[in-house]
Amino acid sequence: MVNNMNGEEPSSELTYLFHPKNIAVIGASENLNKFGGQVLYNLKLGNYQGNIFPINPKRDKVAGKTSYKTIKHVPEPLDLVISVIPNYQTPQTIEDCVDVAAKFVIINTAGFKEIAQFDENGMKYYNEIVRILKQAKGVTRTIGPNCMGLTCPISNLNAMLGFLPLAKKFEDFNISVTSQSGTWTWSVVNSANSHGVGIANAVSNGNELDLKFEDFVEYFGFYDNNTNAIVGYVEGFRNFTKIKKIAAEISEKKPIIILKGGRTESGAESARSHTSAIAGNYDIFKSFCNQTGIIEARNFNEIIGLARAIKIAHPDNYPKNNRVTIFTGGGGEGVIISDIIESCGLRLAKLQQHTIDNISTLLPPIWPHNNPVDTVGATNFVWMDIKKILEILIKDENTDIILIASPLMGARKGEFPPGLKDYVRLMMGIENITFEMIESFDKKMSKDIIRIAKKTDKLIIFTTIYYNAQETQEYKVLEDMFDNGILVVSDPEAGAQIIQKMLRYKNFFKIS
Amino acid sequence: MVNNMNGEEPSSELTYLFHPKNIAVIGASENLNKFGGQVLYNLKLGNYQGNIFPINPKRDKVAGKTSYKTIKHVPEPLDLVISVIPNYQTPQTIEDCVDVAAKFVIINTAGFKEIAQFDENGMKYYNEIVRILKQAKGVTRTIGPNCMGLTCPISNLNAMLGFLPLAKKFEDFNISVTSQSGTWTWSVVNSANSHGVGIANAVSNGNELDLKFEDFVEYFGFYDNNTNAIVGYVEGFRNFTKIKKIAAEISEKKPIIILKGGRTESGAESARSHTSAIAGNYDIFKSFCNQTGIIEARNFNEIIGLARAIKIAHPDNYPKNNRVTIFTGGGGEGVIISDIIESCGLRLAKLQQHTIDNISTLLPPIWPHNNPVDTVGATNFVWMDIKKILEILIKDENTDIILIASPLMGARKGEFPPGLKDYVRLMMGIENITFEMIESFDKKMSKDIIRIAKKTDKLIIFTTIYYNAQETQEYKVLEDMFDNGILVVSDPEAGAQIIQKMLRYKNFFKIS
Repeated sequence: MVNNMNGEEPSSELTYLFHPKNIAVIGASENLNKFGGQVLYNLKLGNYQGNIFPINPKRDKVAGKTSYKTIKHVPEPLDLVISVIPNYQTPQTIEDCVDVAAKFVIINTAGFKEIAQFDENGMKYYNEIVRILKQAKGVTRTIGPNCMGLTCPISNLNAMLGFLPLAKKFEDFNISVTSQSGTWTWSVVNSANSHGVGIANAVSNGNELDLKFEDFVEYFGFYDNNTNAIVGYVEGFRNFTKIKKIAAEISEKKPIIILKGGRTESGAESARSHTSAIAGNYDIFKSFCNQTGIIEARNFNEIIGLARAIKIAHPDNYPKNNRVTIFTGGGGEGVIISDIIESCGLRLAKLQQHTIDNISTLLPPIWPHNNPVDTVGATNFVWMDIKKILEILIKDENTDIILIASPLMGARKGEFPPGLKDYVRLMMGIENITFEMIESFDKKMSKDIIRIAKKTDKLIIFTTIYYNAQETQEYKVLEDMFDNGILVVSDPEAGAQIIQKMLRYKNFFKIS
Repeated sequence: MVNNMNGEEPSSELTYLFHPKNIAVIGASENLNKFGGQVLYNLKLGNYQGNIFPINPKRDKVAGKTSYKTIKHVPEPLDLVISVIPNYQTPQTIEDCVDVAAKFVIINTAGFKEIAQFDENGMKYYNEIVRILKQAKGVTRTIGPNCMGLTCPISNLNAMLGFLPLAKKFEDFNISVTSQSGTWTWSVVNSANSHGVGIANAVSNGNELDLKFEDFVEYFGFYDNNTNAIVGYVEGFRNFTKIKKIAAEISEKKPIIILKGGRTESGAESARSHTSAIAGNYDIFKSFCNQTGIIEARNFNEIIGLARAIKIAHPDNYPKNNRVTIFTGGGGEGVIISDIIESCGLRLAKLQQHTIDNISTLLPPIWPHNNPVDTVGATNFVWMDIKKILEILIKDENTDIILIASPLMGARKGEFPPGLKDYVRLMMGIENITFEMIESFDKKMSKDIIRIAKKTDKLIIFTTIYYNAQETQEYKVLEDMFDNGILVVSDPEAGAQIIQKMLRYKNFFKIS
């Protein structure tokens, strides 16, 4: 259990944190209104296989397991201790952990450094813990305080607060998460799988009294074979020397995507009450990214979007260059997307003459003969024929990237608008169109796109309003496309931002 | 029918365009694969009450109506002619329209100025039409060519290409749309109603050979009493003198929201093949907006979002100032939103001491005692108790705007994640939680927010991932909140951008 590193001995002590052979929970409870109840519940939900030792001096048993008065009464050496008891009791707990040489303690409890502005006790308890750990010289390492815990699906380790089912590690691509925000960690873990991204590890760092963002990046980067990319939320680095030393080396092999909190004065002020981090200067952060190849995401959606793009592109499937061909059914949309393309540092491809000539055999003579390829609302051109134009575009040597704008037919509401059934019958000769039929058109179209995409090394981007509509049938079509290497995005702007960042990464490391 | 202006005589000739007493369709057909079929279908779908005259020399009847050889054979003076026949036949058609003094012609047909780059005939036909209209000295006015038509729900006029049910004019708030993109017009009309915004009029301007963006803005602004705000997509103004003269005056009464296409070199290049517009210089456009109070939207979603915000705020319900209080369940989210607030030119409110004291009676002692109001994951604080904190916040005199981040409980998939039912049972004592129960929690919460919002003139913003999820029950909850003056937005960034633009508008016109 301890060792998942291809049978080798673990080369980082943090391996024990994400693959502990046992866990003690200080403040264990069956009450889900208490953190101790939530941790036990989630550990069980994750089907954790090691020994769990509840610590609760008032009880003989908790959740059917023998309960111990203190950690000193536990009959095994401990890999991981999870502590949810109040701040004033925490220093004593850490003292106990050091005494029994527990390897790691997650301090979920809040009320330390981050409350300094209105309660002096927070800092007092914080400093006591620092003193204890210093004396212990690294016997015990801590995560937190003021954090939501961690998860490692491959170990069936689901040690988070709040309700969270165990995420899945995927066969092909997994991210590891390290974050100075607990709810942010939770949100990434909660949404990654349904967007086609597996979870290798995720940790909420809290106030980073001991283990820090930089330490987790180092572990995921150098020591965890399941991690393909690293995503993080950071307000301020606490060990800038370390992250500077390791970032470029790790990022070259495993892209690192970071969202920076506290970019502004207001954000920095909020960060002080949040994780007590002195939010790093944003300009310094930006030049740090520029010097190390770290990819900066600007919001949560972009974190997930970039992870998806990296899944498709890394390590040797990046677009050759930044020349985009737009394929759309609307001229205005073509103009708007052209603006987006250039604003994001990409370029409109100049189509080869044979491309234009070949498309001209399919579209009415008034089509623009140019990029964007606008089907000018040709009434005999249904989107199901998208494949014919796409077959032409993949042969265009001036195009690196093909952006297809929004052709899904699916209707989102439970009913057709008035008149649509007749319209379809009269226009296409289809009697009594149903949602099932529309789904099967969409499915057929996606199969065609997938088939064509496999013939080319150009990146195909597909924009769709169904990006987040997990409850719809269309979403399955999108998942299928994404699983086959088509970059499905919510809108052209999201897509262009992602591509520009991918290309900057590729160029930084001179990936051919 | 002609006159909906409170019984007065129409003061603009354009009244006849949007409220025509009859319509001739040149190129009428029953075949929906032809534009002439689509126009007839949509007119019927809209339940247009005036006379419709199909023009088709090869037929005696079209769609059950007597068909005429040419427009000259129609027995009535015509208000509106819709022409969908090929470009080379169009000049003759216009000649005929002038001969019979038809008031308006919509030329849907494409293949004129915009194809000049690859086909010289386009310009030839275009110039012929210009010559004919010039000689006729304004007897007949044209819309297009290369446009998708127009709609005016109050006239049951649904004269668009493509399938489009007749939109609704609402009782309380309606936009009018003018756009140099047909699909863009179509998209606004197609999505406005379901986002709580009514349609007064909408027109696709096409190449603007005669009637232009500026003319429609003038009509909606000065002469149409049903229009509360004007939204438009423009690549380049063709009559800058006119728009400059009228924009500020109209915008003060009816906010004008514009998305500019062709902001970049690439966009401008695409615009040339699209509407043949010489895309105006973007810097000039920006200073034009700054000088006239026109609101610039940066994308389609913002157009709809701004229209929604204007519905809530205009004319005398704008936030007093830009001080925002953030109400969130996550500290990291609070930091991220703080950054967004400041980046968008807004400010974090400095809470009054009594606000902080009162919130402290509800939240654990470790809450940040500051804005953002972060409930620090307090396990006994369910979001259903949001109302207690909101009641406190509306009394804070340093707060103009309250931004509530994402508290809907609803689950989007058709099934609960494993373990959730037990979790809820153990945590809240609720046996066998169902989606119906979650919906009723959400409904109760929204009712509470609505009740509290009615007591304050602060703007309440509610961010939610369900913003576009029209197929879910949650969407009804959101619609209810929006109908009661709460600004429901997709995410904090969208909300902050909208507010900043609203405030700039308010300050420009010194609205108190």
